[in-house]
Amino acid sequence: MPTVNPPRGMRDFLPADKSRRERVLAVIRDRYRGHGFDEIETPVMEEYGRLHAGIGGDNEKLAYNVLARGLDAETIRAAADDPAALTDLGLRYDLTVPLARFYASHRAALPSVFRAIQIAPVWRAERPQKGRYRQFVQCDIDIIGDATARAEAELIVASLDALDALGLEGGTVRVNDRRVLDGMLAAFGFGEAERPGILITIDKLDKVGVDGVVAELRERGADESAVAGFERFLRLPAPDAAAFGADHIRARLPEGVSAEVIDHLVGIGEAVRAARPAAGEIPLVFDPFLVRGMGYYTGTIFELAHTSVSYSLGGGGRYDGMIGRFLGTDVPAVGFSLGFERLVDLLGVADAGQQPAVVLVHDRDVPLGELLAAKAHVVATGARVRLEQRPKNVKAMLERAAADGYTSFVSLRAGDDIAALEPRSLDA
Amino acid sequence: MPTVNPPRGMRDFLPADKSRRERVLAVIRDRYRGHGFDEIETPVMEEYGRLHAGIGGDNEKLAYNVLARGLDAETIRAAADDPAALTDLGLRYDLTVPLARFYASHRAALPSVFRAIQIAPVWRAERPQKGRYRQFVQCDIDIIGDATARAEAELIVASLDALDALGLEGGTVRVNDRRVLDGMLAAFGFGEAERPGILITIDKLDKVGVDGVVAELRERGADESAVAGFERFLRLPAPDAAAFGADHIRARLPEGVSAEVIDHLVGIGEAVRAARPAAGEIPLVFDPFLVRGMGYYTGTIFELAHTSVSYSLGGGGRYDGMIGRFLGTDVPAVGFSLGFERLVDLLGVADAGQQPAVVLVHDRDVPLGELLAAKAHVVATGARVRLEQRPKNVKAMLERAAADGYTSFVSLRAGDDIAALEPRSLDA
Repeated sequence: MPTVNPPRGMRDFLPADKSRRERVLAVIRDRYRGHGFDEIETPVMEEYGRLHAGIGGDNEKLAYNVLARGLDAETIRAAADDPAALTDLGLRYDLTVPLARFYASHRAALPSVFRAIQIAPVWRAERPQKGRYRQFVQCDIDIIGDATARAEAELIVASLDALDALGLEGGTVRVNDRRVLDGMLAAFGFGEAERPGILITIDKLDKVGVDGVVAELRERGADESAVAGFERFLRLPAPDAAAFGADHIRARLPEGVSAEVIDHLVGIGEAVRAARPAAGEIPLVFDPFLVRGMGYYTGTIFELAHTSVSYSLGGGGRYDGMIGRFLGTDVPAVGFSLGFERLVDLLGVADAGQQPAVVLVHDRDVPLGELLAAKAHVVATGARVRLEQRPKNVKAMLERAAADGYTSFVSLRAGDDIAALEPRSLDA
Repeated sequence: MPTVNPPRGMRDFLPADKSRRERVLAVIRDRYRGHGFDEIETPVMEEYGRLHAGIGGDNEKLAYNVLARGLDAETIRAAADDPAALTDLGLRYDLTVPLARFYASHRAALPSVFRAIQIAPVWRAERPQKGRYRQFVQCDIDIIGDATARAEAELIVASLDALDALGLEGGTVRVNDRRVLDGMLAAFGFGEAERPGILITIDKLDKVGVDGVVAELRERGADESAVAGFERFLRLPAPDAAAFGADHIRARLPEGVSAEVIDHLVGIGEAVRAARPAAGEIPLVFDPFLVRGMGYYTGTIFELAHTSVSYSLGGGGRYDGMIGRFLGTDVPAVGFSLGFERLVDLLGVADAGQQPAVVLVHDRDVPLGELLAAKAHVVATGARVRLEQRPKNVKAMLERAAADGYTSFVSLRAGDDIAALEPRSLDA
């Protein structure tokens, strides 16, 4: 008989955990809806060819594939050297590939600028390790059909609002643009062919520092004068978080980065500032070394940070090329993914604003009709009600109920007047 | 390139559908929580051996199995005659098998009587047909650890309350007991070995009528005197819905059905009546011919009906034997599953009580900062806000927004005083 544990790398959620997850989701969903995003849902499975078309990046290798049905012995034998022939569906590894498929399928029924919310699990066959799961929830918003800085600004403002509503005020967003990175590397004299590899090195800046990046660039055999110029640039003083204007951005870049790209970034900054006038300092930081891993990004990229943690709480970017691969017509698109699992871990067990919850402790001899009538009486007050037959150790039972969020109890004996039942606080 | 449709038998949900589904789920979840049930979640995948241990009934054959990772050519070739060797995980086909596994794993951390809510998708490789999907949501409550009629009564009362809250007052529950069926068939002289087959025939009573059932029993070669006695019994007058007492139940049964079983049914009736005194007639109907398909039921079985539809809206039963197969110790359990997909279809598009939703229609030349400041202003009022650049056909755009649940609009031109913006109703 198999173990009673969930499959490796996957989790069961007990009532307290599940309740916390649902509360966090409800807050995020409410804020995103408030900002004009509409929730959609796609099936957890997509066709194999869709999941392995090259746009999922490294995640494609991590996809769980579903065994095709009705395979005959012949087909199986023939698949010995090509296991992909055994499968026709797979579990999604992200929500972006399904969204692009969804948009291509339903475009005619959607607004010209479509703002989507997707809150749903994805699956990756990762090597299990602390904080990495094989099933986890992604929480994405995307704007399809808007090429202007308005789209980035709406995503950023809505996400900061959601973070505020979760009690995490003071979030900031690091912003860059893939075209800035490209223009910058070109300006320093790195060749076009070597730039993708160089981006992988730059992406490690937070972890290995300037020395580590420079050493790795030399190992890659990059041109010494390009590396030297880039190193001087890397060692420029850290940016002033309170500024995000054109001058500030230009001062952080070598000559040669397109004015159009800088204008787009400046536009995002102006819009975010206008939408959050009470916030004081602008919550954006221009970071010319921000890379982000996915290959499909074509423009703006961003990452959400909060002072309480060293890791990112979300991020996203513009992927104007992807929908065209599904639709045949290019459609601009930009998305933002909140790190839901990290947020849940961070937010602890705050349980404020929940409905009253009453434990109805009854003697064994209370007739069933009286018991259910008493329960119905308390349910009708709007409280949650859990029945418990009086155990030997009442204190332990009530402590467990308190841990499950129950706030008061009421004691019921046979023949009690139900209308007179008065719950008492569990704190007492 | 694959089609842009979702995989066969699976569905995308557009904003209006998704929103309706979430609202129905929120009502059900709220009512079940009120009645003291706690929501849990398990991974969508379970180990292959768990899903194919014989307790899933016919659904086991419909399971989607996940291709094991890292298969070598040798293993694949060897699996030609045993495709099960190609898989180690599968997608769950119900929520009962995972619940039993969950309970066995976490029993020490759960209350002595555990009331679980599970609202989650399941997958079955059914032949696609109208109203049958390969991914659909199940909505289950279960009580584990209570062998008394209290458990059935709590499930029934909570489910009727949920139905009421959805605007479907007047639901009724048909109730029977597997032991009643067994005692009844024994009393008429059907042999123990043939009874499971006879139950399959009786289960068709609603579809084929008494004549059809009797004909099929004869085809099965059942004893003629047993069939004749059973036929007379089948033709007894229909039950009086307003009664569910011991006399009423006995009058519907041949001699020989255990008094303990009848007492259990009577206890359920008394408790349900006491919990819903305002409901007038008791919402239970004793139906000695109710069978329900799953092999794991050991006692009470029930099915939820509503006058507005001819099909069942849910059902469940007692499965005292199943948890023991996972845990090694027998633990009583009883569950109720609401037919969520049917309820959603039935409930139409009622959208009452939703937050105000405003379309912010702006000119192309409104600076991005002004635009986002205006949006933030309306969001801060608690409304949902969708930005729309003024199109040629404003009317068509507003009609589409109204279909998405938007209730008013506001027009923004460059330089407008944002504090003076006043939404106007979309009905006008």
